[in-house]
This record gives sequence, C-alpha cells and structure tokens, in this order.
Amino acid sequence: MFISFEGIDGSGKSTQARMLAETLRAAGREVVLTREPGGSPGAEEIRRLVLEGDPDRWSAETEILLFTAARRDHLERVIEPALTAGKVVICDRFADSTRMYQGLSRGDLRAVVDQLHALMIGREPDLTVLIDIDPATGLARAKGRQGTEERFEDFGVGLQEKMRAGFLSLAEEFAERFRVIDGAREADEIAADVLSAVQAELHN
Amino acid sequence: MFISFEGIDGSGKSTQARMLAETLRAAGREVVLTREPGGSPGAEEIRRLVLEGDPDRWSAETEILLFTAARRDHLERVIEPALTAGKVVICDRFADSTRMYQGLSRGDLRAVVDQLHALMIGREPDLTVLIDIDPATGLARAKGRQGTEERFEDFGVGLQEKMRAGFLSLAEEFAERFRVIDGAREADEIAADVLSAVQAELHN
Repeated sequence: MFISFEGIDGSGKSTQARMLAETLRAAGREVVLTREPGGSPGAEEIRRLVLEGDPDRWSAETEILLFTAARRDHLERVIEPALTAGKVVICDRFADSTRMYQGLSRGDLRAVVDQLHALMIGREPDLTVLIDIDPATGLARAKGRQGTEERFEDFGVGLQEKMRAGFLSLAEEFAERFRVIDGAREADEIAADVLSAVQAELHN
Repeated sequence: MFISFEGIDGSGKSTQARMLAETLRAAGREVVLTREPGGSPGAEEIRRLVLEGDPDRWSAETEILLFTAARRDHLERVIEPALTAGKVVICDRFADSTRMYQGLSRGDLRAVVDQLHALMIGREPDLTVLIDIDPATGLARAKGRQGTEERFEDFGVGLQEKMRAGFLSLAEEFAERFRVIDGAREADEIAADVLSAVQAELHN
C-alpha cells in the first residue's frame, strides 16, 4: 500500500507521516517512510540542485523536469521495490505537490506536469492524506524551522492561501484516493483520523 | 541559424565545430559556440550529476529526464536568446545524440525521447553536420584524451559501430537537415565541406 501525505508547509503532515509509520510498525507491518523531493540518494542530489542557490536559476519547465527525474529515481529505487516486497510505503509529498505548485504559478504548466507524469511516472498513491490547515497557523509553525533551502513559505500567507485552495481542488479532482483531515487539532487526534482512513483503505 | 554537430567520439566533430565558428567569425558573423550535455551553467551542473560517479547510478529513463532538463536550460538561457539576437549558434551535440544513444541501448526508449522532446524542447537545428568516421579510427583518437567522466568509448569498437549506424540512420530519417561528411581526411578538407554545407543552407 502506497500512502502519500500532502499539505501546505507547517500543516503537520511530516509529523503525521512519522506517527503513522510508527503506529503501523508497532502493529507488525513493514513500513518505508520516505519523502519528496528526494527519498533516494540520486533524488536527494537532484533535490539539492533544485532547492539550493538562486531561486531564479531554473525556469519552471526545467524545474518540473528535474523533479520528475528525482521522482523517477525515487520510484525505481525505493517505492516500487518496497511495494513489490509487500511493505507499506508512506511518502511525505508526492506528485500532487508538483501538480499544485506548478499549476499555481502558471496554469498552463499543470498540463505539462500531467503529461510528464503519464509518460515517466505512471504510479499514483493508493491513498493521499491531505492535512488541511489555516495558512496563518501553518505559516507560524513553518517559520519556526530553519534551512538553507528556498522554502515556499517565503512568499507569505497569500501564497499559502492559494496553495491550500490548490490542494483542496486536487482533493476534489481525485476524490477516490484523497482524504482531507483537519490539521488544526492536537497531533494525537489528527493521527487517530489518519489511522482510521488507512485502516478503511487496508480493509477494502 | 542553428547548426549542430554529431558523430561518434573521436570523429573530430568538436574540432570541426570550432573551426566553423572561427571561419564564420572571420567573415563577420556573430557566433555562439556551445556544447551538450551542458552549455549553460545549470546544464553543466546537471551534466556533472549525470556523467560523474557510478555509471549505474541512474536508470536510462532518469538519465533521459536529466538530459532533457539540461537541454531545456541550455535552450532557454543560451540557444534561443542567441538565435533571437540574429547570431549563429553552433552546438557540439544536440538532441540527435540522445536519440541515438537511448535508441541504441533500449529500442523502446527512442519513443520516450521523442515524446519528451516534443513536450519540453520542440526546437530542431536548421542544419545537422554528421562527421562520419570509421569507428576504429575514432576510438584510437578518443583514447588519446583523458577525463573523469564516463565516456562512451569505454564500451569498445563494437558499440562505436552501432553508434555510427545509429547516426547514419538518423541522417536518413531527418534527411532534410542532416549533411553527412567524411571525417577520415585532413581537418582542413573536412572544414571546407562543412563550410560549403553551411553556405548552401545560409543562401536558402
């Protein structure tokens, strides 16, 4: 089973991905917890190439190609082998993040993202957990962290509002695999909802 | 005018590209001489990512995506601006090299290369000069050079034979823009033929 977590920065999705991995492991399942962009040694190198340095060094189109290359490597080296071995794969961000970000910045690029995905990736998660949160709350949380990478929260709360709307729109578009979970609560409460969604899917 | 040079390693194409650039500059034209993979700062970084290190670190599919990302950057930052400014662009290898190498290693990947090219690159050279040479001669020349990069001549004369055939087959497929020039002669003789081909195209 392949589960992705999506959400704006500061939504708590990484915490929830980790908590779910721990819960499933405690229940005896083999779990691979991974993330994008990155997740395999090669993809992490591509991640650094894209996210470090001058934010304008790559055009949106080149960036999509680099992210697709990283995703292909991650898929081949980590995700597919784990799924073949019967493990649960939990991925912090997957293709929906690319769809959302690129569709947001220039609408016409969503089509390019989809065509590249169809050609080079193919795979979608069985279940996508969207941790939905008020952008002001998310931004306050995200700013508490540090890093050398360009981070999307640099663009402020207006952009975070658009991102939230972008994810909610994807949740409607791919309603069969998306579960929207309210992230403005205690981590344990959210984790209980996430686990329910996963268990429902496992018993399908 | 956009001119690419293709040929197996040791064919002398890089020498010929440089000689043509010098001749055209001496005749008063503005020329941008560039190369692939690479040719722009970002594309050179991607080149290093692909060509250095363990040759098996990337799958063929991931490598195609990385080369397409590098080509897109090179096209946006170097080739298109130069063409718009009325300059002649001379490029040592372009998309035909990718078509040839990937079509060779696994036939089904040629279709992927073409679809990615149509989606993300679009541009073809106005003229492609194929410097054709006997692989044994090319290999002997290529082995005289050094470098940290994986080089295709490592695979020996059998592969070079296939590469030569692959380029000749592309020259038939894209006969309207390809000119096949015998590379087994003195550099000056070859350069004269290259210049004739370019002049014929310029006066079209």
